[in-house]
Amino acid sequence: MKLRRLLFPIAALLVFVAAPVRADEGMWLYSAPPRDQIKKKYGFELTDAWLERLMKSSVRFNSGGSASFASADGLVVTNHHVASDAIQKLSSETHNYLRDGFHAKTRAEEMKCVDLELNVLQSIEDVTARINAAIPATASGGDAAQARRKIMAEIEKESLDKTGLRSDVVTLYQGGAYHLYRFKKYTDVRLVWAPEQQAAFFGGDPDNFEYPRFNLDVSFFRVYENDQPVRPAHFLPWSARGAQDGELSFVSGHPGNTSRLLTVAELEYARDNQLPYTDALLKRREVLLTAWGARSAENARRAKDDLFGIQNSRKVRDGQLAALQDPGFFGAKVAAENAFRQQLRDRAGGTEALTAFDRIAQAQQAIAAIATRTRLLENASAFYADSFGYARALLRAGDERAKPNGERLREFSDARRESFEQQLFSEKPIYADLEIVKLGDSLSFFVATLGATDPLVQAVLAGKSPRARAAELINGTQVRDVTFRKKLYTGGAGAVTAAKDPLIEVARLIDGEARALRKTLEAQGEIKQQAQAVIGKARFAVEGTGNYPDATFTLRLSYGPVLGYEENGKKIPALTTLAGLYERNTAQGNKEPFDLPQRWLDKKAALDLSVPFNFVHTPDIIGGNSGSPVVNKAGEFIGIIFDGNIQSLSADYGYEDRQARAVSVHSAGILEALKKIYGADDLVAELLRTRR
Amino acid sequence: MKLRRLLFPIAALLVFVAAPVRADEGMWLYSAPPRDQIKKKYGFELTDAWLERLMKSSVRFNSGGSASFASADGLVVTNHHVASDAIQKLSSETHNYLRDGFHAKTRAEEMKCVDLELNVLQSIEDVTARINAAIPATASGGDAAQARRKIMAEIEKESLDKTGLRSDVVTLYQGGAYHLYRFKKYTDVRLVWAPEQQAAFFGGDPDNFEYPRFNLDVSFFRVYENDQPVRPAHFLPWSARGAQDGELSFVSGHPGNTSRLLTVAELEYARDNQLPYTDALLKRREVLLTAWGARSAENARRAKDDLFGIQNSRKVRDGQLAALQDPGFFGAKVAAENAFRQQLRDRAGGTEALTAFDRIAQAQQAIAAIATRTRLLENASAFYADSFGYARALLRAGDERAKPNGERLREFSDARRESFEQQLFSEKPIYADLEIVKLGDSLSFFVATLGATDPLVQAVLAGKSPRARAAELINGTQVRDVTFRKKLYTGGAGAVTAAKDPLIEVARLIDGEARALRKTLEAQGEIKQQAQAVIGKARFAVEGTGNYPDATFTLRLSYGPVLGYEENGKKIPALTTLAGLYERNTAQGNKEPFDLPQRWLDKKAALDLSVPFNFVHTPDIIGGNSGSPVVNKAGEFIGIIFDGNIQSLSADYGYEDRQARAVSVHSAGILEALKKIYGADDLVAELLRTRR
Repeated sequence: MKLRRLLFPIAALLVFVAAPVRADEGMWLYSAPPRDQIKKKYGFELTDAWLERLMKSSVRFNSGGSASFASADGLVVTNHHVASDAIQKLSSETHNYLRDGFHAKTRAEEMKCVDLELNVLQSIEDVTARINAAIPATASGGDAAQARRKIMAEIEKESLDKTGLRSDVVTLYQGGAYHLYRFKKYTDVRLVWAPEQQAAFFGGDPDNFEYPRFNLDVSFFRVYENDQPVRPAHFLPWSARGAQDGELSFVSGHPGNTSRLLTVAELEYARDNQLPYTDALLKRREVLLTAWGARSAENARRAKDDLFGIQNSRKVRDGQLAALQDPGFFGAKVAAENAFRQQLRDRAGGTEALTAFDRIAQAQQAIAAIATRTRLLENASAFYADSFGYARALLRAGDERAKPNGERLREFSDARRESFEQQLFSEKPIYADLEIVKLGDSLSFFVATLGATDPLVQAVLAGKSPRARAAELINGTQVRDVTFRKKLYTGGAGAVTAAKDPLIEVARLIDGEARALRKTLEAQGEIKQQAQAVIGKARFAVEGTGNYPDATFTLRLSYGPVLGYEENGKKIPALTTLAGLYERNTAQGNKEPFDLPQRWLDKKAALDLSVPFNFVHTPDIIGGNSGSPVVNKAGEFIGIIFDGNIQSLSADYGYEDRQARAVSVHSAGILEALKKIYGADDLVAELLRTRR
Repeated sequence: MKLRRLLFPIAALLVFVAAPVRADEGMWLYSAPPRDQIKKKYGFELTDAWLERLMKSSVRFNSGGSASFASADGLVVTNHHVASDAIQKLSSETHNYLRDGFHAKTRAEEMKCVDLELNVLQSIEDVTARINAAIPATASGGDAAQARRKIMAEIEKESLDKTGLRSDVVTLYQGGAYHLYRFKKYTDVRLVWAPEQQAAFFGGDPDNFEYPRFNLDVSFFRVYENDQPVRPAHFLPWSARGAQDGELSFVSGHPGNTSRLLTVAELEYARDNQLPYTDALLKRREVLLTAWGARSAENARRAKDDLFGIQNSRKVRDGQLAALQDPGFFGAKVAAENAFRQQLRDRAGGTEALTAFDRIAQAQQAIAAIATRTRLLENASAFYADSFGYARALLRAGDERAKPNGERLREFSDARRESFEQQLFSEKPIYADLEIVKLGDSLSFFVATLGATDPLVQAVLAGKSPRARAAELINGTQVRDVTFRKKLYTGGAGAVTAAKDPLIEVARLIDGEARALRKTLEAQGEIKQQAQAVIGKARFAVEGTGNYPDATFTLRLSYGPVLGYEENGKKIPALTTLAGLYERNTAQGNKEPFDLPQRWLDKKAALDLSVPFNFVHTPDIIGGNSGSPVVNKAGEFIGIIFDGNIQSLSADYGYEDRQARAVSVHSAGILEALKKIYGADDLVAELLRTRR
């Protein structure tokens, strides 16, 4: 039965793609919220005050994810799987908080996280005109990119100096618009409560992206400033009742990336080149980490976090590829583009946009020509090890920091310096044995992809086998030592050279070509961006306003009802209950990954099993929305996004609401578990204290 | 610690490769046994009687593996992992013999296996001269291949008609020699006893290819003729004492395939093309079956056999690739070839062999040019489903059986007819849900590899997504019905066409190109074979006699002492004991795949824990040797090969005995378990009854 759900979703999309009404589609900018659509369809008015509270209660995890303020005392709620990176870094061989969970009974017990940065959006400013004005009309791709980078860095620096707020210029509408996003930034973030990973991720990879679901995918942090809990301007009052079947829900979060406005040429590249490559690489790494993790429990603990991310990505890529490999789905994309191009042909001034399509196709070809080496070298697929990331960061920091701000690679700009340093000086544990396995495997992939006779391959291997070379480099490098990293970073290029660190020297060996590839990629990207901007403007002219841009990890508002769906003729109800959790656990014989933590087994009798646990709804979301608060019309917290169902995996390229659903943890289910399973009465009291 | 064993073995080979003495290397033909070497080094004489008993006690599992007669009443012993395919086919949702084991307490309870064929070698005849005489000196690659196929089919048919024995002409020394192997063939094979897979494969994939080991990788069958147990001419008396540390051991089995005489051009192709492709495909399938199997226990049962084979192959491929990607290992291969070519240059008549190297390189290039499409279409990587195998077999049988015997594709020759039909009419269960998952994934791989715009890809998909098309084809085909297969096979091409079976029609759609690719491949293979024969003759002339040919799934004799080894400065003893099994089980918390069947836990106290369980020795083996009997000088059964250690994975390309070891189950350990754990007193009595 479950299998069928895996097999038919993409075919089902055909029905939708051809349908004219696109329901509750959209990841809307807070600067252009869908007031009219919601007013018209649901008779509900998005007021400025309502929007501001939701916006300023929304929190971005810089490590990749969403969250929200849940109390007047700086409590932040997010998904356990968003928090897991931080929890892992707090764990050790003796304290496995990922496995066992964590509960700070007092403020003093709250544990400060390693290199975690949270952002809260404060304002949005349109800087499109200023940026476009700074780019000479006659500039070539590369020069224009350089000019844009310079003006963006200027604007960010100027804003940072003026407001003290983290200031990011973000690219929207494929370069049709540039907005300056200012964030309040928090770096003292402490872990308050986390469940056992087994409760958060019950069903593991097998149930991931499936529904019905039963996951307590929730964790709590508290944000501090000057060693005191922050008192945020806004937070979301917790609804003890939670999401109701059929009610309108809103999602405020940070969808990472969608590709809905890509041209057919770009989609073809994704389908025939990028996705197959990534898919194969992920499967290679999944096998590597699974096999290594199976050798012992400690191996498994060390590999778990990487492995979770890989399995998750692998399902996503498979789903995206399934959508694009479906001739029906892809045919609809082609038909839509052809129709738009026909409209352009019929319009005065449409020629510029038409030629823009051709420029994109040409740039895409140029990118395809260097794609393999770019992935291996600049994206470091050939050097799959945290140690290599540090080695390269040190090497490049030495070279880049000597340059004027506007001429550096973006990640070394002054505005990003603090975040960069926090990453670079992270105390996150790195395990040499795992690093050797990962680097050895990726070096073997390097040889296999470019061939053993490639001169750069031979230079990197230095006459050793991939495994032997990996062991030599990982055992020989000092970059896992934070003191060493600080010394080299402070010392600059001279200190980096003098260190003669073997892994940094490998980074140096490939750096010339890696930088050249990146330069070409950015130049071609610039050509595409300019062409997309042209198309974007033409699209506005043809289709009118009221569109939303592709997701870019900026804050967005989505909406839609809590709603079940049909699958192979069977109704899937919108809500699951705590009873359902125990039923699935029993049906699978309490076997991993369907086993429950002991206290869940012990305290079953204490629970009200009819309390809702997870639910599905139709808001338009994608990866990065994990941890997004779900609110009702009253602006109350009724749940938290943690997944999409398997049918939603095509969302990268298009929205559908026949079967695709967002999956959330229910606010009532969270309360019930906190109270009855975890005895976290203090936390419950804080959540229900709705006024400061 | 375990990790290090994975990392350094290839580097270690360097020492060996450069060393002049190659110890106990060799997979020797029974027609040219290493009498002198053994006499000289061990002072032991291989008599004709000793050799004949071992040869005629050796059994080949046609499904891929080795075995031996263990009693006067037709008892056959092999590995559980060789038997598992047959055990799986006897299992059902209600009887899971793979998981639970099996024990026929009486002859009547012995269960007849589905489509299992056993062969026992009776004689070897050199037919090189007759074959070479039948190939016109002026014949091109394709014509020569055709002529060789014709004369081979003639010889086989003539021998079958004359002797009633299965008769296979086998190619040795890369075409330097052709031998006619005659086998007694048994098709009524019944399962007598099998342990739980968990005892046979304790430690699962994580411990596979590792040492120390603790596996009861053994199963027993009985061979029948005319519904009576066969009384074989020879069998191997069971040694209750078993293998002793340091004693000389002999292995008689069927190594499947080695590539030790490949030229550098061929090794480069393996390193840069064939192995990376296979490795990626295996990892893709491993992820697919692991993820699907994780959804439920029944899924896991259905996928288990496929998955085991895939994980095993993946480790082998990774190990082979590691050897070839090691510049030291590969450099030694290059140096050896260069030295040989220099010797040829210095010899009268060496030119022909020198140009043969060039012909091989050219043919290898031609093969590389069609490799991708050949793998997808003729090797059916794009159609990963048992159903497709049946569909194509029916289609081609219809076409081929109408042709004269000598002109058919080899698998349709008269001599292979009986075996072919046994395969085709197998009652082996095929699960539609798993078939859809496998076919859907491989069709997606097909699209990704050739691109969505490839005309053949589009024709195969017929406008559907890979998953939807797979569901349509698997749900629509009738080939899973044995009656249907019989009807079409009997009815011939007309019946096949009339059936309009959707999957057979897909097989037809690709058959033109698949056959053309195979024809090119065979023609180029013929060129290589002729060139290899030339090189082989020159090698004999230069290096003298006393060489053994690459493995070809023909019966071979290997030898070498029971011997531990050193690893990272630590001594690994040759033998493990039953005590070690329980220690590893406890250290891993009795968790899968380190859990033990309940009766092993219950009956621990009854066991003599000091009894040896597994051991390592130096005989030269490779995949296909699984199940090979290990005998002492007295010709007694002292153990059974089931694995090689991780260091032995380079054996495809070269032998080494510094660390590489064969891994066997000890005959005393088997007896102890049969008696104390399984209460199989009847079986023990039969094994110890050494005279009929």
